[in-house]
Amino acid sequence: MAYIPEHLHEFSAAVFEHYGLSTADAALAADVLVTADCRGIHSHGLARLWAYVRLFEKGTLNPRPQLSIIRQSPSTAAVDGDNGLGLIVGPRANDMAMEKAAETGMAWVTVCNSSHYGIAGYYPLQALERNLIGWSMTNTSPVAAPLWGAVSTLGTNPIAVAFPAGSEPPIVIDMSTAVASGGKVEVAQRKGKSLPTGWIIDSEGHPSIHPEDYFGGGSLLPLGGDYEHGGHKGYCLMSLVDLLAGVLSGANWGPYVPAFVLAQKSTAPVGKGVGHCFAAMRIDAFMDLDEYRQRVDHWIQTIRATKPAPGTNGPLIPGDPERQAEQECRKTGIALTEKVIQQLQKIGRQARIPFPTA
Amino acid sequence: MAYIPEHLHEFSAAVFEHYGLSTADAALAADVLVTADCRGIHSHGLARLWAYVRLFEKGTLNPRPQLSIIRQSPSTAAVDGDNGLGLIVGPRANDMAMEKAAETGMAWVTVCNSSHYGIAGYYPLQALERNLIGWSMTNTSPVAAPLWGAVSTLGTNPIAVAFPAGSEPPIVIDMSTAVASGGKVEVAQRKGKSLPTGWIIDSEGHPSIHPEDYFGGGSLLPLGGDYEHGGHKGYCLMSLVDLLAGVLSGANWGPYVPAFVLAQKSTAPVGKGVGHCFAAMRIDAFMDLDEYRQRVDHWIQTIRATKPAPGTNGPLIPGDPERQAEQECRKTGIALTEKVIQQLQKIGRQARIPFPTA
Repeated sequence: MAYIPEHLHEFSAAVFEHYGLSTADAALAADVLVTADCRGIHSHGLARLWAYVRLFEKGTLNPRPQLSIIRQSPSTAAVDGDNGLGLIVGPRANDMAMEKAAETGMAWVTVCNSSHYGIAGYYPLQALERNLIGWSMTNTSPVAAPLWGAVSTLGTNPIAVAFPAGSEPPIVIDMSTAVASGGKVEVAQRKGKSLPTGWIIDSEGHPSIHPEDYFGGGSLLPLGGDYEHGGHKGYCLMSLVDLLAGVLSGANWGPYVPAFVLAQKSTAPVGKGVGHCFAAMRIDAFMDLDEYRQRVDHWIQTIRATKPAPGTNGPLIPGDPERQAEQECRKTGIALTEKVIQQLQKIGRQARIPFPTA
Repeated sequence: MAYIPEHLHEFSAAVFEHYGLSTADAALAADVLVTADCRGIHSHGLARLWAYVRLFEKGTLNPRPQLSIIRQSPSTAAVDGDNGLGLIVGPRANDMAMEKAAETGMAWVTVCNSSHYGIAGYYPLQALERNLIGWSMTNTSPVAAPLWGAVSTLGTNPIAVAFPAGSEPPIVIDMSTAVASGGKVEVAQRKGKSLPTGWIIDSEGHPSIHPEDYFGGGSLLPLGGDYEHGGHKGYCLMSLVDLLAGVLSGANWGPYVPAFVLAQKSTAPVGKGVGHCFAAMRIDAFMDLDEYRQRVDHWIQTIRATKPAPGTNGPLIPGDPERQAEQECRKTGIALTEKVIQQLQKIGRQARIPFPTA
């Protein structure tokens, strides 16, 4: 069943408003969610609305957060998200990074006391609209083990960075630092398939290819998997994100990051809420913008023209799959699964907001 | 054969001075090389001196570079390395990043017209001495294929970031974005061993486990290896470094980065020399320094206390292996292979500088 993006936007904005968000904030949060679906990242789109709703129902989140700047310098800020929805705290803090970058060349903003902020890639996409290079990172609840650890102490901690281009489409990197997501493990389980090696360990820390071992107390592995395949590097990246978005921001970090779907509150907090960081770089602080655009276009064309590996169509440019999904989405709408549709209809009934027809 | 670090420092500094570097610059370059050996990264230490010497013998590098700032803003600078040795251009540009960060909170410096800058980890180590979080990246000559490409168009493009701690030792991330280095492939070849899956492709782009296929025109793979194991993420990171250190800096990028050991000059340049970038972040721009130190210590202790995976001693903290190597080195000296010793003795004879005894 496929839905018109605008209809889903209208629906989710109305739901957020029902739960106390201002009209502007509700529209913003809806934009982050619908962007995820349009870009083919359905795990972070409307499928998550029930989880956000649940946080508001439980009174765990503040629907009208007043962001405050704890510290700042010309090129940095440390922001407190006032226990708000990440989908609105994130964009506002990202705005600060972009505004400071416009003034001083580059800026870095950390955020604590926030919650799940949607797709990491949403934020650098905003930077592209201002001809900036944009960065975003967030820590997430612990589902991955550090290399040589037997239990989950780190999140899938994504990194997203986007680069404007010239006549070519922009380069948009948006990746978790785990080998694969829990969502992919779930898909394999549903299909009754075993996993590739190096994705997960079981609850004792043994390597496993059985999806049920992950859901039975196991952990995802960092990008690379085992040591032989560079798992120490993925673990370094996962740590990097946690240190910048969690430790430096004043948020919870590592095993203390609150679980998204169950409750926002950490049972044993070491900081405030979930942490993010955002950065922006003015291109003309480094190079003439037109020259840069030509250089990036040339880079894209060169990589794209690389001789393809046998059985493939050759290298993609980071962001290609999501952009293609977005183009497709404009034509055919957003396809939701029956399970998600039922969840959304239920949310609609509770909030007395009609769910659109497909 | 093990050598006293100071003796190797003295020797390499004298060699650099012989080839025209100022006394201060020669000592600085020697420091970068010896630091690599002390930290156990022998591939980037004295073993590389012959390659640097060769560049000076060919007159390819400028021994007395005058760095110039092409553009700058309060928190950024774009630097031209004047075709100097990366081992001195790098530290000076890194200094600029640290000085700007001290003034404005965070700073980012790009560098073009440089050359091989040694270990990426050297630079954030300098930042630690000033209580800063330090970053460094460089692009390198193409030896790796983008995911689904059959030929090398990207370098092993390392990322290094270091975080000061409190009573714990600092966290030092220093990693290439390839699954494994060419050096490790060489070691396997020497031992007559086959490689783990996902390290390399052969000259036609087929996956291979035979070291000779890499040296016969094959390529390293990005961290993750194939798509199933997250090779697209490693490719994203490799690209990220090339875009920041190469494209944005005005340096050569991708397949155009000049090969280090053969000649500095790219045969078809798309920019100037090799590119780097450096960043520094003042911790107290985000958080009270003492509070940060406690939080990082707690993070380190928590991760270290993770239940070990079976057959392991549990997770390390990034930087542990190099720090242990450094402690060992202070006791036992730097062990060099016979081949490297002979190279260094030869360099010594040519420059009339006595090579120290073991």
